[in-house]
Amino acid sequence: MINIVTGGAGFIANTLIDRLLEQGRRVVAFDNLKLGRLENLSRFYSHPGFQFVQIDVASPLSVCKALEDASNLGPIDEIWHLAANSDIPSGVANPDIDFRDTFLTTFELLKAIKGLPVKRFLFASSSAIYGDQGEIAIHENIGPLFPISNYGAMKLASEAQISAAVESHLSRAICFRFPNVVGVPATHGVILDFVRKLMANPDELHVLGDGTQQKAYLHVSDLVDAMLKIRDLTEDKRAVFNIGPVDEGVTVRWIAERVADRVSPSARILFGEGNKGWVGDVPKFKYSTEKVRSLGWSPVLGSQAAILRAIDEIACQQGA
Amino acid sequence: MINIVTGGAGFIANTLIDRLLEQGRRVVAFDNLKLGRLENLSRFYSHPGFQFVQIDVASPLSVCKALEDASNLGPIDEIWHLAANSDIPSGVANPDIDFRDTFLTTFELLKAIKGLPVKRFLFASSSAIYGDQGEIAIHENIGPLFPISNYGAMKLASEAQISAAVESHLSRAICFRFPNVVGVPATHGVILDFVRKLMANPDELHVLGDGTQQKAYLHVSDLVDAMLKIRDLTEDKRAVFNIGPVDEGVTVRWIAERVADRVSPSARILFGEGNKGWVGDVPKFKYSTEKVRSLGWSPVLGSQAAILRAIDEIACQQGA
Repeated sequence: MINIVTGGAGFIANTLIDRLLEQGRRVVAFDNLKLGRLENLSRFYSHPGFQFVQIDVASPLSVCKALEDASNLGPIDEIWHLAANSDIPSGVANPDIDFRDTFLTTFELLKAIKGLPVKRFLFASSSAIYGDQGEIAIHENIGPLFPISNYGAMKLASEAQISAAVESHLSRAICFRFPNVVGVPATHGVILDFVRKLMANPDELHVLGDGTQQKAYLHVSDLVDAMLKIRDLTEDKRAVFNIGPVDEGVTVRWIAERVADRVSPSARILFGEGNKGWVGDVPKFKYSTEKVRSLGWSPVLGSQAAILRAIDEIACQQGA
Repeated sequence: MINIVTGGAGFIANTLIDRLLEQGRRVVAFDNLKLGRLENLSRFYSHPGFQFVQIDVASPLSVCKALEDASNLGPIDEIWHLAANSDIPSGVANPDIDFRDTFLTTFELLKAIKGLPVKRFLFASSSAIYGDQGEIAIHENIGPLFPISNYGAMKLASEAQISAAVESHLSRAICFRFPNVVGVPATHGVILDFVRKLMANPDELHVLGDGTQQKAYLHVSDLVDAMLKIRDLTEDKRAVFNIGPVDEGVTVRWIAERVADRVSPSARILFGEGNKGWVGDVPKFKYSTEKVRSLGWSPVLGSQAAILRAIDEIACQQGA
């Protein structure tokens, strides 16, 4: 059974591919290597069930050709669509980035698989589609959705396309609404940012915003567990699932202090103003994960434990 | 005060422009004349406050230039974004149509107005964003949204972009979620279709589906009343409003019979199978309009009265 993983050289795909290969599936990873990194894949090269194709999923001719080649290996069972812009602030400054790398990748992929007997389409969506909902507990069944970043907007736009494609040619689709996810190989995010800053200047760490932003974090190992469990237990033609930790999360201040503990304990931590790090950042967030927990999943690591493990992993990755 | 109306040569814009001019606003209408028709605008040409620009809003250079020219007339107060593909079945067969005419028009327009002091962005969204929600009364605050046509998907994708743009550069936006709207100048829709068929063959009328699809219909005069009222009374930065009649709607069978009464009373009406007319059609639909009614709006015409008036208007338009 062939599984396609787009964004295959990126952060979350790395753990996912590992688990899919472990489950005996053949994996063909697509990536344009714009944000993904080839060295992330090196651990899979020796595996006979693994193959990498460097293509841009937003390019219709390339994606059709790559899918045709993959089909020659055997029927394509599942498509895990993880390719997207993951650099949210860059997409706030320039809407073309999320348009191309998040929206168009979905659009061209959905067109290209028309006619292929794909059993399931699995999409990496995001809590960013909800926008700033204040103190409300965010269930999957709330509305209206008011994303405040182009990233969130193009994830929601992708969910919409996928839903329409189920009507016309997809047999089944699941959208996983990711929380903030941490772990390695880290390509972006607050921990990597702090580790890099402290390695460059061990005396001071400048933090965007006043450090009071509080968010829940999930370790990538728990995220991938949830995705596989949801895939196995969901028979609906269309489904959306919030995935996230069950706790209230941690503040940016706490993360900054813990990174300093690990990388440079004597560093002074300096905070900015306001409780938004950048335009499009949601300051506070109450995420309901009741639905995925009703399937019997719960995270092994809470936000604190996930952050602590990820700090250690990322510090090692960066050689700190 | 300059008001831009995109899709200005289309069906709904025709009544909207009339009302805006009546309110003393200057109107600049944009249209690519792909679905819109120049003759729809002829009644405005003598009005000193009206101007038409033939451009494609999906073309970035044209839309920037047209907005710059409009700005030279005075500050742009409001943008009414109605340009879209309105031919839902064509977009089911070819996703490029809704992508280009509905999604990209919004995308390029939002980019082009960055930096202009637009007070309000008003968007013609659709009940199609909800998809088939079965027997649930569809309020604005329900989820998840599962559009079943590319039309609905690209309307939802447009709402998402608009929401993100409010965070970065728009001061205020309202999305009107339209029901099925009837009236003249008719460019598409079930009544025009039946009138044309009966004029071509007065003996028989072939209806897609079994005729049991039941939908609520609003007359365009009531729709535009609601839009103007919502604009005047809503101060939220982001708002979405369902607009629709308060009744349960009418069946396709009833519409077919009434069109036959008007155009060719002796015609035999022949039905197909299934309760969906085409892929992407939502068979039954309970639309909650509580929110707009709480502003003091209610339609003058219910579904039946709206259809009867529209049949007469469209029959006249077609010379029947």
